[in-house]
Amino acid sequence: MGVVVQKFGGTSVADAARINRAARRVALARSKGDDVVVVVSARGSLTDELIDLAREVCPDPPARELDALLSTGEQQSAALMAMALHRMGVAAESLAGMQIGILTDGVFTRARIESIDPTRVREVLGRGKVAIVAGFQGVDTEGNITTLGRGASDTTAVALAAALGADICEIYTDVDGVYTADPRIVPTARRIPVISYDEMLELASLGAGVLHSRSVEIGKKFGVPIHVRSSFTDAPGTMVVQEVEAMEKILVSGATATENEAKITLREVPDQPGIAAEVFDGVGRHNVVVDMIVQTPSRGGTTDLSFTVPKESMSEALAAAEEVGNRIGAAAVECDQNIAKVSVVGVGMRSHTGVAARMFRSLADAGVNIQMISTSEIKISCIIEGEKAHQALRAVHAAFGLDAEPAGT
Amino acid sequence: MGVVVQKFGGTSVADAARINRAARRVALARSKGDDVVVVVSARGSLTDELIDLAREVCPDPPARELDALLSTGEQQSAALMAMALHRMGVAAESLAGMQIGILTDGVFTRARIESIDPTRVREVLGRGKVAIVAGFQGVDTEGNITTLGRGASDTTAVALAAALGADICEIYTDVDGVYTADPRIVPTARRIPVISYDEMLELASLGAGVLHSRSVEIGKKFGVPIHVRSSFTDAPGTMVVQEVEAMEKILVSGATATENEAKITLREVPDQPGIAAEVFDGVGRHNVVVDMIVQTPSRGGTTDLSFTVPKESMSEALAAAEEVGNRIGAAAVECDQNIAKVSVVGVGMRSHTGVAARMFRSLADAGVNIQMISTSEIKISCIIEGEKAHQALRAVHAAFGLDAEPAGT
Repeated sequence: MGVVVQKFGGTSVADAARINRAARRVALARSKGDDVVVVVSARGSLTDELIDLAREVCPDPPARELDALLSTGEQQSAALMAMALHRMGVAAESLAGMQIGILTDGVFTRARIESIDPTRVREVLGRGKVAIVAGFQGVDTEGNITTLGRGASDTTAVALAAALGADICEIYTDVDGVYTADPRIVPTARRIPVISYDEMLELASLGAGVLHSRSVEIGKKFGVPIHVRSSFTDAPGTMVVQEVEAMEKILVSGATATENEAKITLREVPDQPGIAAEVFDGVGRHNVVVDMIVQTPSRGGTTDLSFTVPKESMSEALAAAEEVGNRIGAAAVECDQNIAKVSVVGVGMRSHTGVAARMFRSLADAGVNIQMISTSEIKISCIIEGEKAHQALRAVHAAFGLDAEPAGT
Repeated sequence: MGVVVQKFGGTSVADAARINRAARRVALARSKGDDVVVVVSARGSLTDELIDLAREVCPDPPARELDALLSTGEQQSAALMAMALHRMGVAAESLAGMQIGILTDGVFTRARIESIDPTRVREVLGRGKVAIVAGFQGVDTEGNITTLGRGASDTTAVALAAALGADICEIYTDVDGVYTADPRIVPTARRIPVISYDEMLELASLGAGVLHSRSVEIGKKFGVPIHVRSSFTDAPGTMVVQEVEAMEKILVSGATATENEAKITLREVPDQPGIAAEVFDGVGRHNVVVDMIVQTPSRGGTTDLSFTVPKESMSEALAAAEEVGNRIGAAAVECDQNIAKVSVVGVGMRSHTGVAARMFRSLADAGVNIQMISTSEIKISCIIEGEKAHQALRAVHAAFGLDAEPAGT
């Protein structure tokens, strides 16, 4: 008899009918003889509604109280899920922030888990009951309720699965797995049956919103198999697991296109040591996270320096860049919001050459000009003109054979 | 510097504007230099909405989970109130069930307070902050969240005031005090400036819904002055206090009329010892609470036995009465829902004679026939025909001089 952790997202528990549907999955798992721990998110748009109400009461609500407020959404779902199971004759107990045993640091609204004491969850299981855990929350050493950041119920689930030595952590969501690309943009995209933690991390950070990044990190650290599945169908979903050798046969597992960055360029900067440091010191002091950086070759003793930042940080980054630009004598500081980032991710590119060349060729063939390039061990990203994001994604997706069923499965 | 407890009911925190209005009262009290503890109810109709949702998920939800669900309403209000105070520059911290220090028994949905450890509330006050306490809830010895019954945030407030040795417990509600009668029925009713705990208890049990009965019991036991006030006006409200001698000058403090009972009559019951015991054993086994009982004088060896029960228990009580009636050979078992109970309450009647006579005379003059009578030390109740409830109440109210300003104030 093993332990199974099942997590249901907000759309999967949005109303009474959906809660009952999710409960049937729990009852089914329980009927197989496993101990079952269920982690739930807040219903549908409840968290957004509570945030709106908080801002109406106080435009800049204190973080401690925001956590106290928002944590109630998941507590409600947990109690309702326990009721739904009771109706089906399955004994269950809900546990809220203080009862779960998740100890966090004291950074309200984005606390990090410090330790988990699963004694109480084990007691509930030991009484033959399903433990229903309110996701997204914990408690700090002072006994204050903390939350782990938006989407962090995934993290609650995977961390609990690690602490309990669970056999699997099932993430039930409103899509039926992780796809080779966003199917709304690439109709030929297909579900990825198995993916490595590292690939999933890159895809999550590139905006594939299926899993909370930190949950994948924890899954990797503790070797928890994560199964992403639809709560509305019986489709097989996607398994996120430790990398195995066979995965390297697939060059690229997925491709993404994001349009959430802006590009800032300092023109004709003196090509001297220390200039780049000065620019990014200035930007960093404004707490702006810089993504990609490109410096053109020197021409007449000057160089052009470009970098990308999240669009929401653009005005701050631009102000910082203009201040530094004036000081170091840049000819101009320009800003371009009309850009997109197309990326491919795959552990296979570690051991294979020619991946970058194939990506650049496919973009060229599609008439897409590349403005900036950045690479990691298992990812290649290109900044392109914003209007061409979708056609670029489709071109790259096809170029790596993602449209067809892969040979390995 | 003293301690003030302020409690705001559901209508007083129903939306952002009202939460901010309530917060201004808190800020005002704080600015006077007192330590302030605030107890809040759930917003407006939120508790009813959560109950509806629970019943949709599970027609007969387990009590433990109902408590876990409903307690979140008050937790939300507490966090929102802390935010509203933050906006006004008043430091505050919200405390939920597990953090308040209210230990209860394990009877979910109607738990009783066993003890209060106000350490954490005192710590918050000690840091110069207002403590905002989620009403209506506590925690049992197993660490489960419990609730104290509908309307029990009053009880939270008075019990905390007792534990903290507070100077006063202010109950802010949607009426501006306790009235000599329901002003919707008796337009000449006036606010009672001061009332004793005992009178308030009788009025509360007769359906004057301003205060939760148990809060008055606790106030009496620990001598906590309770100030019932409107959260929407600056009207002076009603003080509920220990009885003082001057109160005895007023024969009757208030009058009520309720229509929430039904009368059951067993006709021509053999007039033998043990028959009444058998009837009420039978009814009691169905957990029906009997209010008034009247037995007519024997006539030809038989007697008529009437009693009243809450309307919601009527069908059960009737079934029990019919069962017993058959067994003991009653001629008939009848039921009458068309009754009302008119009552007068006042500590003055302890030391004065003629109160009952004056009440009966006023009813007779108004053409109202009395069906049953019951009295306590400070209360007289009459069962009358349902249609005449309002005219009876107005007659009694006038007969005891409640329409005019009393001499003592």
